[in-house]
Amino acid sequence: MSDLFPPSEYHRRHSAIQARLQAAGLDAILLTQAADIFYVTGFLTRFWESPARPWFLVIPATGAPIAVIPEIGAHLMGKSVITDIRTWSAPRPEDDGISLLAETLSEVVPQGGKIGVAMGHETHLRMPLGDYSRLEGRLAPRAFVDATDVMHRTREVKSPLELEKLRQICAIADRAFARVGEIARAGTNLDVAFRAFQILLLEEGADWVSYVAGGAGQGGYGDVISPAAPKQLCNGDILMLDTGAVKDGYFCDFDRNFAIGTPSPEAARGHQILHDTIYAAMEVIAPNMRACDLHSVLCREITARGGAPCAGRLGHGLGVTLTEWPSLTPQDQTVLPAGMVLTLEPSVDLGQGRILVAEENIVITENGAGFLTNPAPRDIPIL
Amino acid sequence: MSDLFPPSEYHRRHSAIQARLQAAGLDAILLTQAADIFYVTGFLTRFWESPARPWFLVIPATGAPIAVIPEIGAHLMGKSVITDIRTWSAPRPEDDGISLLAETLSEVVPQGGKIGVAMGHETHLRMPLGDYSRLEGRLAPRAFVDATDVMHRTREVKSPLELEKLRQICAIADRAFARVGEIARAGTNLDVAFRAFQILLLEEGADWVSYVAGGAGQGGYGDVISPAAPKQLCNGDILMLDTGAVKDGYFCDFDRNFAIGTPSPEAARGHQILHDTIYAAMEVIAPNMRACDLHSVLCREITARGGAPCAGRLGHGLGVTLTEWPSLTPQDQTVLPAGMVLTLEPSVDLGQGRILVAEENIVITENGAGFLTNPAPRDIPIL
Repeated sequence: MSDLFPPSEYHRRHSAIQARLQAAGLDAILLTQAADIFYVTGFLTRFWESPARPWFLVIPATGAPIAVIPEIGAHLMGKSVITDIRTWSAPRPEDDGISLLAETLSEVVPQGGKIGVAMGHETHLRMPLGDYSRLEGRLAPRAFVDATDVMHRTREVKSPLELEKLRQICAIADRAFARVGEIARAGTNLDVAFRAFQILLLEEGADWVSYVAGGAGQGGYGDVISPAAPKQLCNGDILMLDTGAVKDGYFCDFDRNFAIGTPSPEAARGHQILHDTIYAAMEVIAPNMRACDLHSVLCREITARGGAPCAGRLGHGLGVTLTEWPSLTPQDQTVLPAGMVLTLEPSVDLGQGRILVAEENIVITENGAGFLTNPAPRDIPIL
Repeated sequence: MSDLFPPSEYHRRHSAIQARLQAAGLDAILLTQAADIFYVTGFLTRFWESPARPWFLVIPATGAPIAVIPEIGAHLMGKSVITDIRTWSAPRPEDDGISLLAETLSEVVPQGGKIGVAMGHETHLRMPLGDYSRLEGRLAPRAFVDATDVMHRTREVKSPLELEKLRQICAIADRAFARVGEIARAGTNLDVAFRAFQILLLEEGADWVSYVAGGAGQGGYGDVISPAAPKQLCNGDILMLDTGAVKDGYFCDFDRNFAIGTPSPEAARGHQILHDTIYAAMEVIAPNMRACDLHSVLCREITARGGAPCAGRLGHGLGVTLTEWPSLTPQDQTVLPAGMVLTLEPSVDLGQGRILVAEENIVITENGAGFLTNPAPRDIPIL
């Protein structure tokens, strides 16, 4: 774990967060979510899957970050750049770290000071709500205030070392997608294909596979979030597989479409439209354009080619979680800085409840944008 | 998805929850977490991996449950027993389902009524904290009150159909563990073994693998939550693999230990002590004993055999999340009813930072307890 990144990478992140805390007049930030804590420490474990224990990380506006965590994590956290690690024997329902956390925050936040916590979109507080109320009571007159932007603005610009990690997991998924012909054909059960696709991702080097979804249906599919049914693939089906695989804590998130036998003309054309839309968008993406403007480019390019864009977002941020802000929607005015990693996820409505979704992972650069994936071919591959 | 369980299973769950709501004087419960929503609907998707969208499920004290969810989930939720499905086009940061949810709760909860929400141990609110505050404001004078027990007491007793699912995933992991000799030996890198073990689980029928942890070290390992390092297994190492694999939304959670070459006498003896401790505990488990008493039995049996029990919990509940309440600790006085599924997870401290952990999955029965796993042998298997 300790060799995911050199210590300087974490120190850079801490400084960036602290600069934002100071600019916002906050005395500290309290982090409770896996991705935020991983981002500032490199603490990488699948143990977050257990809802039994809360984990806390405090970054004061100046000074060293402090981990306030269950004893069971002390050994692993001890390998990180964090030197101030305070533990309690969790789970201890009558006081599950709350006294220790209150004491820690009291040290670094003066009476009447402000503690940032994420309260905004795409966040939640990963600790019991009742414990949070008790913590508020213990720390008054210190106040908790929304600090969503502190982490969002810091995490959204990826460093060169992070881009290397993202390229690596995209390449792993590229290699797995290139082998889908080995595991899916007419007659294969969809659930068998889902399982086998996860095996391909692991064989190609994913540490684990946090997300696989997809669909299959005649000439298109109904949704993109369903688990697989034990349903046979048939000639004329369009099979879509979408994955968020993980390497060193970084996610890819893209899909590929395949035709089982000869695709319908509409599906074949839909695939071309989505491909051409993505390439057209890549030509016009420039740093500091807004998310809503990129959404509008994608819609325009689909429509110009005779396609019907689906409602809903057409892409999103990507990094240490499967999806990050912003959303490519008409409402989202987030500026897209150089270094931001996005999915472009245009989709077309083929009617009769059938859709087709393409997805690529890209990085905004100083000059435009570059692919992190090896983009899908224009013509839908036939299995 | 719709055929995970017959509709009657869900209706039984709804009735049990509603009886508890009525007994507690609550007008409705608001669910936000994946496991709770899966439990009452069968809505099973890995899409929860994306933090972008909140999902809500409202169960009134009487009447049909109502799903208030992002449009992207309507197709999948439409296959469930839920007939009242209300959607909005998420993500929509300026009003991400909050108006729709407030309106829904207003319909089923009178002015001055009480809405249950989980605020207790092992829970969190999976929605932005700022949106929760806005919801509270919109619904006043209705009040949100803690309803942790409503779901805990309902979920903790597994039905015969749930036990079948749990037996199935335990059997899948049993078969994968039986094949560890194919993938790990002296010279194998630990990270390669972790990846290959996940492949075995998928090959044996897991839908996905939500959790793999483990460790390896001379005569024991340092912790049980670390990801794998690219470190070669050596003669004298004890390798432990622990998994939470998933089938139809139900988890197993158990481990197996293996000796690379001849184990040290301490490690060999430690393995026997843990095995004998588990069998001794199985003899005395009776329905309605308390979690703390079972903890004390495990400690006593380890100590009686000359072992040093590790601090921390020695087992926990299991079901639709990797870990559920209660915790086998000295403090936890939860009663263990027939139908509760637990892990028994005794561990011994071998000194010099080395531990050994055993884990089995069991069900409390009317007469005692039964294994869901095929228990580990007394003598540590040698690879």
